Amino acid sequence: MQYALYYWPSIPGRGEFVRLALEAGGATYRDVGREPDGLEQIEAFLNGEATATPPFAPPFLVSETRVISHVANILRTLGPELELVPDDSYARDWAHSLQLTLTDFVAEIHDTHHPLGPSLYFDEQKTEARRRAVTFLQDRLPLFLGYFEQILDNNPVSDCHLVGDRLSYVDTSLFQVMMGLRYAFPNAMADIHPTVAGLDRVITAVRTHPRLRDYLDSPRRQPFNENGIFRHYPMLDQT
Amino acid sequence: MQYALYYWPSIPGRGEFVRLALEAGGATYRDVGREPDGLEQIEAFLNGEATATPPFAPPFLVSETRVISHVANILRTLGPELELVPDDSYARDWAHSLQLTLTDFVAEIHDTHHPLGPSLYFDEQKTEARRRAVTFLQDRLPLFLGYFEQILDNNPVSDCHLVGDRLSYVDTSLFQVMMGLRYAFPNAMADIHPTVAGLDRVITAVRTHPRLRDYLDSPRRQPFNENGIFRHYPMLDQT
Repeated sequence: MQYALYYWPSIPGRGEFVRLALEAGGATYRDVGREPDGLEQIEAFLNGEATATPPFAPPFLVSETRVISHVANILRTLGPELELVPDDSYARDWAHSLQLTLTDFVAEIHDTHHPLGPSLYFDEQKTEARRRAVTFLQDRLPLFLGYFEQILDNNPVSDCHLVGDRLSYVDTSLFQVMMGLRYAFPNAMADIHPTVAGLDRVITAVRTHPRLRDYLDSPRRQPFNENGIFRHYPMLDQT
Repeated sequence: MQYALYYWPSIPGRGEFVRLALEAGGATYRDVGREPDGLEQIEAFLNGEATATPPFAPPFLVSETRVISHVANILRTLGPELELVPDDSYARDWAHSLQLTLTDFVAEIHDTHHPLGPSLYFDEQKTEARRRAVTFLQDRLPLFLGYFEQILDNNPVSDCHLVGDRLSYVDTSLFQVMMGLRYAFPNAMADIHPTVAGLDRVITAVRTHPRLRDYLDSPRRQPFNENGIFRHYPMLDQT
């Protein structure tokens, strides 16, 4: 099947969760936002010219006549098609639940640098960002990471996969969140590491997966930067 | 089928999106959080005593041996079982996309009174809440409501339902968001009303649905209050 991912260029952002699944599954896909007229093509879907079911925002995936939006919904669709989720309905609902928890986690990570919302620049909300980051690192980071450590411990059939006994999109998504957190908050992540060290096994499984290793070493993989979700502002990495 | 909803007592909160679907579908269900030992029963799932797939947070739905968490995932499951979503897979993915957009909208509405995160009380972040509410009401509220007005306009088979030609869980969810917004921001909602007046038709369709009319007039329907998502703080309802 031919897929087309529509996402803003220049940042890994939420699009990267979809790219990792497409790459892990060996899918053929276009990365439309990075094509020369990418922004115009995205806009044609958002304004309803190109579809009767316009997404609210990127990322969205177009595959044949389908337009699927929201990372978790896209991955729920791709999972079975790319064999990135176990082949039973309860496991699929469970994977989707975990992905939606990652969605909430990512939103809170984003809000550490944008507590007053997406309409203002970081420079207009630095003081508030500092206050939000403190409570995030003290309370929320351990809560979310501890939860995923527990889920990994609970998995009876693997010690390096969150759902089932092989790579799933939940693993690739957790990998991306962990990489982003290490980029944004190296001090806080070093401090918390001993309590959630089991998650390293998921990271290693993703990093050493043959297709993903090739992708992660390729120029298709974009570095984190200070326009995306995961931003390294040293003033926010202090508890 | 017998359903059990697990959600915090005393607030409508995110649980109410699930209640509206259960009531619209005529389902038999327990509202566990409102039972005498409700909090202990919720806790047994969260700490993994009662399930091998513990949710991160309420609401979650238990049905036979399934534990489904996150409002959008619960509604995606209930939709076909309660005939609250059209009977074709693309319409179901589309309904799920719209519900996930409502999820994001609800998170932003919540953040108007908690911009520095859930760890601090409102009284500890009133100044920041005021700044966030201003940008929310100016930029985000028109964007989200305008989107749903457009989606309603686009629906070729109904002028009072967002997806398909009869009531879906997307309608009941939008109804709850609109009721919550009118409670929290009566001035802002009065100001914006002329530009999104079409959404009144969805509200009326939900309100006059026979089962929902009975529910909304019953003591099972909980009023909004200042502990939930939608809070009426007059200082935040000024642009």
